[in-house]
Amino acid sequence: MKFLQLTLFLMFAQAVYAEDGSRLWLRYQENSSRAEVICKHKITPTIAVAKQELESNWKGRKIYLQILSSKKTSPHPDDSFSIISKANEIVISSISEVGLLYGAYHLLRLQETAQLTDNVNISETPKYNLRILNHWDNLDGTVERGYAGGSLWQWNELPENLSPRYRQYARANASIGINGTVVNNVNASPNILTTHYLQKVKALADVFRPYGIKIYISVNFSSPAIIGGLPTSDPLNSETIAWWHSKVAEIYTIIPDFGGFLVKANSEGQPGPQDFGRTHADGANMLAAALKKHGGIVMWRAFVYNPTAGDRAKQAFDEFTPLDGLFADNVIVQVKNGPIDFQPREPFNPLFGGLKKTLIMPELQITQEYLGQSKHLVFLAPMWQDFFESDTYCNGQGSLIKTITTNQKINAIAGVANIGEDANWCGSHFAQANWYAFGRMAWNPNLTAEQIADEWLAQTFIPDKNFTSPATDIMLQSWEACINYMMPLGLHHLFAWEHHYGPQPWCDIPDAREDWLPKYYHRADSAGLGFDRTTSGSNAVAQYHSPLREQFDDIKTCPEKYALWFHHLKWNDTLYTESAQKSSCYFENGSESAPQNFTLWEALCYHYNYGVAQVRQMQKTWQQCGQMIDTERFVRVQSGLKTQARDAMWWRDACLLYFQTFSKQQIPFNMEQPVYELEDLKKINLGNGSLN
Amino acid sequence: MKFLQLTLFLMFAQAVYAEDGSRLWLRYQENSSRAEVICKHKITPTIAVAKQELESNWKGRKIYLQILSSKKTSPHPDDSFSIISKANEIVISSISEVGLLYGAYHLLRLQETAQLTDNVNISETPKYNLRILNHWDNLDGTVERGYAGGSLWQWNELPENLSPRYRQYARANASIGINGTVVNNVNASPNILTTHYLQKVKALADVFRPYGIKIYISVNFSSPAIIGGLPTSDPLNSETIAWWHSKVAEIYTIIPDFGGFLVKANSEGQPGPQDFGRTHADGANMLAAALKKHGGIVMWRAFVYNPTAGDRAKQAFDEFTPLDGLFADNVIVQVKNGPIDFQPREPFNPLFGGLKKTLIMPELQITQEYLGQSKHLVFLAPMWQDFFESDTYCNGQGSLIKTITTNQKINAIAGVANIGEDANWCGSHFAQANWYAFGRMAWNPNLTAEQIADEWLAQTFIPDKNFTSPATDIMLQSWEACINYMMPLGLHHLFAWEHHYGPQPWCDIPDAREDWLPKYYHRADSAGLGFDRTTSGSNAVAQYHSPLREQFDDIKTCPEKYALWFHHLKWNDTLYTESAQKSSCYFENGSESAPQNFTLWEALCYHYNYGVAQVRQMQKTWQQCGQMIDTERFVRVQSGLKTQARDAMWWRDACLLYFQTFSKQQIPFNMEQPVYELEDLKKINLGNGSLN
Repeated sequence: MKFLQLTLFLMFAQAVYAEDGSRLWLRYQENSSRAEVICKHKITPTIAVAKQELESNWKGRKIYLQILSSKKTSPHPDDSFSIISKANEIVISSISEVGLLYGAYHLLRLQETAQLTDNVNISETPKYNLRILNHWDNLDGTVERGYAGGSLWQWNELPENLSPRYRQYARANASIGINGTVVNNVNASPNILTTHYLQKVKALADVFRPYGIKIYISVNFSSPAIIGGLPTSDPLNSETIAWWHSKVAEIYTIIPDFGGFLVKANSEGQPGPQDFGRTHADGANMLAAALKKHGGIVMWRAFVYNPTAGDRAKQAFDEFTPLDGLFADNVIVQVKNGPIDFQPREPFNPLFGGLKKTLIMPELQITQEYLGQSKHLVFLAPMWQDFFESDTYCNGQGSLIKTITTNQKINAIAGVANIGEDANWCGSHFAQANWYAFGRMAWNPNLTAEQIADEWLAQTFIPDKNFTSPATDIMLQSWEACINYMMPLGLHHLFAWEHHYGPQPWCDIPDAREDWLPKYYHRADSAGLGFDRTTSGSNAVAQYHSPLREQFDDIKTCPEKYALWFHHLKWNDTLYTESAQKSSCYFENGSESAPQNFTLWEALCYHYNYGVAQVRQMQKTWQQCGQMIDTERFVRVQSGLKTQARDAMWWRDACLLYFQTFSKQQIPFNMEQPVYELEDLKKINLGNGSLN
Repeated sequence: MKFLQLTLFLMFAQAVYAEDGSRLWLRYQENSSRAEVICKHKITPTIAVAKQELESNWKGRKIYLQILSSKKTSPHPDDSFSIISKANEIVISSISEVGLLYGAYHLLRLQETAQLTDNVNISETPKYNLRILNHWDNLDGTVERGYAGGSLWQWNELPENLSPRYRQYARANASIGINGTVVNNVNASPNILTTHYLQKVKALADVFRPYGIKIYISVNFSSPAIIGGLPTSDPLNSETIAWWHSKVAEIYTIIPDFGGFLVKANSEGQPGPQDFGRTHADGANMLAAALKKHGGIVMWRAFVYNPTAGDRAKQAFDEFTPLDGLFADNVIVQVKNGPIDFQPREPFNPLFGGLKKTLIMPELQITQEYLGQSKHLVFLAPMWQDFFESDTYCNGQGSLIKTITTNQKINAIAGVANIGEDANWCGSHFAQANWYAFGRMAWNPNLTAEQIADEWLAQTFIPDKNFTSPATDIMLQSWEACINYMMPLGLHHLFAWEHHYGPQPWCDIPDAREDWLPKYYHRADSAGLGFDRTTSGSNAVAQYHSPLREQFDDIKTCPEKYALWFHHLKWNDTLYTESAQKSSCYFENGSESAPQNFTLWEALCYHYNYGVAQVRQMQKTWQQCGQMIDTERFVRVQSGLKTQARDAMWWRDACLLYFQTFSKQQIPFNMEQPVYELEDLKKINLGNGSLN
């Protein structure tokens, strides 16, 4: 009987949660009786959340929640907290309520990752004050570049009906320190500013508020004309100005702690101040003036490029640097990490270090638009770590991006969300790690990808080194693997038209914008491959500070990983030089030293093949460690890796066989050979987003 | 100008022959002036061919063609010849005209393969007297199990119009010693025996005759009833007997050197003597009697199995051994190499050594019905070498199949042709090697697969060791590779329904004959895998002579390659034993010694993965050596190997993932993991014969 009862209990326990990823990294075992949590402060909604999380999930000593008095004033709440243990208790203290909440989640994280020690003495302060998700969610329920189902926001049901997932979403964000969300697409519908929709946004804001999350919205620059009925949306027109002031006042009436606007203007067909002969600064400052008195900000995107101008990689810099110093003090320019568009690997955007008298915030892409979407396991923290650590040299050596963007009057960072209405939120289990990593790095860009992978794995799966250590290997290897099988050596934008999933380096769409075609970027010809951005080419290198510009300009000193980003190399150019960074791909066959002489063509073949081998290694490692976790998630990830392994071969063959039509050279016989025919790969209807 | 002329000449020279394989292994550079060839004998059509081939293509000393007088009489011409060099001449001599022709082709082969030495002293006698192709060509122009287009025979245009390819076909066969051809399918249309069709057959016989090739036909046992209008085809009925005697007489009037009949009776729905309560011997002897006075023979197939009887592997033996000694002396029983049906690997058919008082001839399958058809590069000579060398122990140790089948009154061998109307004859370049190898081994089963591969490559491509040596490696490895990725360890018949190209171990067709379904053969269940043919199972082992029957019966002594042919093993049975044959697959990771303990499941995973690795190695090797030959054939073979590499992964994943549903074990993590999902593979419409 005992045995039967136990069996039934275990069956039931298993049945409680489908292992569909819906619990994210928040898998606390609830206490049978509540933990002791004492707070002498008034139990506000935010403190109530902190208290309830600890009472339900904390397994240790008595906890005191303590609000410290502070003389500090800040336009943004101070999220710092400290956790100090005493003999029989632990004290979490902060000057803010949300600081207590972050402290609570921090303590629970230590517990879940088995990092708790007897003596705790922690003091945490976030490096970025504004840690914001950008949702590219449309009002019709679709998500641009979303791979996890439709939009989480049920606009049709709001404001009356509140999905329980809104609160779960807020909780997940709070648990990793995210404190802002832009709920609608940067390609914004003007309708978001109607009272009808503002009421819906308010309903979300009310759910998010206890979790310390502010709401922001993306606005369409032509809103005054489109929904206001004005004859113009010229930012210097007094009617336009009045309309925005009035609209902003309305918003703050509805949502008193509203965060501000995100604006994509004069980019990819969106309206903007240039339509009226005004500058980005004119446009941004006009909106900023309306928001200023309410404490709101404008995040103005620098993602602009003109179909008729020169090298796309140069354009944001060329447009924005002349405006440096002209932006209002509540305008922050939001800049993508690289100068093109979230490619598998880009050098950092030279606006970092280029804008010196302008507030600037990084925009990272959590959704894997260009990195296998929700199908490929690609952990992005190594890419972001690389980005944060990049030295711009704008104030001499040591002017790291993470340093210069966290020492401003407003320190902010945005991540384009990968969240949808799918049960597991992100379309695949490991995609959740990128949401997690964004939050953690926004809090502290000094965290390493390895630390983040390890703690995410421990919380999401099991806190056992036998699992987390090999699984961390998979995650840390995954970005370089993706680069290798997709576009190594500085290649970029070889993606299929529109959906950006598979390879289409041959893509040629009649009448398409030249800079929307892969050929614009790879520039393959009978001589060689790559985009010449040196001083003899587009001179994009000049946008970087010395000594970077000279390093990038000279193939002898340019890092191998950026070779074809900055150079058009000849097929038989010897790629490896003493100063070039060695790539592990050359060691695949177990040789201790990289070959000293190989050509661009050979290096390309090496890298693509190494990418395939890396995915196969990821499969093997998962096969080994994944068996320690639940079958449901093990098999789901195993299946995803199969797709990735097939896709890696697809990418390799598509790119190598296409470039071979220019190089006229054979694939070196000492490496694995293609298995597809170029002509067959060209016939794939990429509309369905998959090879098979 | 000189340069331009040379260039134009080279362009022209290239344009003369499309490298489509149409020239087979016969790529002599024609002499600008004729070589000196002297023959004092009357220039018969056969001698004319020999003389012309040498005059056009021989690059050496003066040649004498010499017919030797002989007292020998034989129902079959003696094809022996000798080649002896003198200071200023070479003498080819034979007692027969066709012997001179074989001598001429032999000498040219030595020339083309760069094997000629100053002193030539060669004496050649074929081991099999009758070296026969079996065409499974239907009168409607289709070819059963043909993968090289339709039938070579243009029945609609015969006898008036003679395709030039008939002569080319005869020449190719003569060049490798083939001296007989059964022109129609063993599943025979009775119409072949009508005067209308016999006139067409005669036209072919007339073309083939100068090349020493006799015509045979497959006959339908019910022909007397179907085309003769008789009430019965009972072989003991006097009217039936009279009809056949009359029909045979008619044939010999039309084709005086007609070879005889091939009969598939009481097999897979074909009519036969058992329909009338008579035995195979009754039926065969009746036909033999009609042919006897004309010098014709009956080749009676032993490929019989009954849907309701026991183990299919046992049935031919059980049906034919009771008739041993009852067949007429011009009946020869034609036996497939293995007891099932041309599987990638089978142990030899126990009728070899089982029939002791009956003429018996091997039937090999040149067309790769079960070995990737014309798409996979699989060189069959290693399989045939293995077969010829098999020791039946019927007269004690040393009773090799090649010995016992070449020491009879009639020594014959048949190969099911892979020839069709495609320009390159066989559907792919390397498939031609199997036609070639069959002819060479039928002449001399002591030739090794390596020798044959090497000389075929030298003639078909280039006689350069830098090419032939690695290409020979590919060919010699290909059979084991195919076994490994399709059905290692003695597995058999996991093929898809009907077309036999892809994997379908799960195949289940309602109301299908049980012995036409893979499950009948692999017998996978939760306990293990394989067909128990031991003394505790179907006892098929008892059909072999000692000590084979004991060896096969005991898993400790049964060769690993036949493990699942003879045993149903448990998934966790330790497979490797001291006496089991080691497979190179276990050394994939470069370890010097095979692991000492692995289970059936692990061994299966090793083998399937090794098969994939072997195909990739074949690709690499081809990439290296293939660049020495013309681009057209290099690329065509390269493309075929890509298909094979994809298919190998398909086979691996289909079989391992299917068997995994029984074994419930994971693929070992130290090997490459599957890239497909079983459910997706099950959905493949195998009707189109390909994965992609």
